[in-house]
Amino acid sequence: MDNLVYKSFETELRVRPDDIDMFQHVHNSKYLDYILAARYDQMEHCYGMSMEQFMARGYGWVVKTAHINYKRPLTLGVYFIVKTSIVDIDDKGCRVKFVLTNKATNKISCDGWFDFVMIDLKTGRGVEIPDDIVEHYTILHD
Amino acid sequence: MDNLVYKSFETELRVRPDDIDMFQHVHNSKYLDYILAARYDQMEHCYGMSMEQFMARGYGWVVKTAHINYKRPLTLGVYFIVKTSIVDIDDKGCRVKFVLTNKATNKISCDGWFDFVMIDLKTGRGVEIPDDIVEHYTILHD
Amino acid sequence: MDNLVYKSFETELRVRPDDIDMFQHVHNSKYLDYILAARYDQMEHCYGMSMEQFMARGYGWVVKTAHINYKRPLTLGVYFIVKTSIVDIDDKGCRVKFVLTNKATNKISCDGWFDFVMIDLKTGRGVEIPDDIVEHYTILHD
Amino acid sequence: MDNLVYKSFETELRVRPDDIDMFQHVHNSKYLDYILAARYDQMEHCYGMSMEQFMARGYGWVVKTAHINYKRPLTLGVYFIVKTSIVDIDDKGCRVKFVLTNKATNKISCDGWFDFVMIDLKTGRGVEIPDDIVEHYTILHD
Repeated sequence: MDNLVYKSFETELRVRPDDIDMFQHVHNSKYLDYILAARYDQMEHCYGMSMEQFMARGYGWVVKTAHINYKRPLTLGVYFIVKTSIVDIDDKGCRVKFVLTNKATNKISCDGWFDFVMIDLKTGRGVEIPDDIVEHYTILHD
Repeated sequence: MDNLVYKSFETELRVRPDDIDMFQHVHNSKYLDYILAARYDQMEHCYGMSMEQFMARGYGWVVKTAHINYKRPLTLGVYFIVKTSIVDIDDKGCRVKFVLTNKATNKISCDGWFDFVMIDLKTGRGVEIPDDIVEHYTILHD
Repeated sequence: MDNLVYKSFETELRVRPDDIDMFQHVHNSKYLDYILAARYDQMEHCYGMSMEQFMARGYGWVVKTAHINYKRPLTLGVYFIVKTSIVDIDDKGCRVKFVLTNKATNKISCDGWFDFVMIDLKTGRGVEIPDDIVEHYTILHD
Repeated sequence: MDNLVYKSFETELRVRPDDIDMFQHVHNSKYLDYILAARYDQMEHCYGMSMEQFMARGYGWVVKTAHINYKRPLTLGVYFIVKTSIVDIDDKGCRVKFVLTNKATNKISCDGWFDFVMIDLKTGRGVEIPDDIVEHYTILHD
């Protein structure tokens, strides 16, 4: 664990009708999909190294651990902001924390963190993250 | 079947990572979710009578028949346009046709049509569409 | 279009909680996933040539057209039977019809058909179906 | 936190094709759906109080926190066992731990825990769990 403070990034998304479950709320597992969608968007637009570029190099990112606290459910058609930030990154993987906020109410819908590791797409096995990628993803808070 | 020409509406959406299947394309059933998402968006913003408003009146719209022709698969992160238009509407239901176009290439990804019927949310059974709703949804092409 | 009558096969599946939508019915696009799940099961157990075996040969099956008639919605936890049968198969593709029946009521939930084509997994483009595969999949009704 | 040891229950499920993601593994959020499916199955068959019965009383269970450790990905068509057990239950909610095991290899695919709370379906707000339900769900290990 280092003491660096990494920059956070935001992506706006919207609830789709197929995300809604029988309780007329966004289904619990869909929030993980939202975080992932935001993260992919930020890899491309904020970090400048998209998932497609990782895949072209033969790498993929996969989730090792996910922890999510549900606070206020999102509902049909709602716009929301996913703010994520690296907490820690080294050659073993990275931890990304997230906060998902309902845009209309400005209240937190859920928060938590993901641990990601990198895999070799051919073998499916974990690999050390190359130095240039760790450096590339080390964008510090101003 | 009438001879009216109804106005068409467009919604822009984006492929989410969880929509991608093992062939690295958008999974076939997700296109139906995209059409539905676009349709909900247009009910709210173009027709001025959202699904929530229908539900508040005790009604829901459900799909009776779906027909979809897949032409060119969408891939990760792609932006696309869903254009829909009513083909026919009466007190029994409505047919909505759609064309989904990849925004980057301007090529058609899929097209087809949905037949929708209205249900009473309490009984789950089909109901006649009230005249004011048929009228409200009859927006003709200029 | 030939006059052969192909054998039909059945697979039993169950509704998962994440398949249920805001109307407390199985979401419309999930039925397509059920048909696909049944078809994969039958490729493996009834035709003896699984999707994995196709993929090992560099081929994938993708949906070209889907047509589905919704008759009676499935609900939480319901067991159902997906019966499918080839209608027609040649080197261009195959049409598979399906009937999905609620096991408890023995009533039809939906029916319809899918047109499948084969793709080369490397190029993503359609290919002619090799003769041995057409023959392998030509299992006639007794 | 009490010192009781609660009975664990098992449900067998199978990966569906639509659960597979671009890395040809089960998509990370689908594991949460598997746990939920197993839990619903066990509520009905092992605890004798199904989700439908809760809903008929005006109650729903929703996830407050989810924690999941991914160890070995599941792949297309795999059968697996979801073993769950209550860790703790009182009038505020319950913690359920789970282990998901690949049936063919007998190796752990993922494990973790969910905190559930009960909601009033009309208000959507959390409620105290009635004593009879806490008692009903307190099935101790032999």
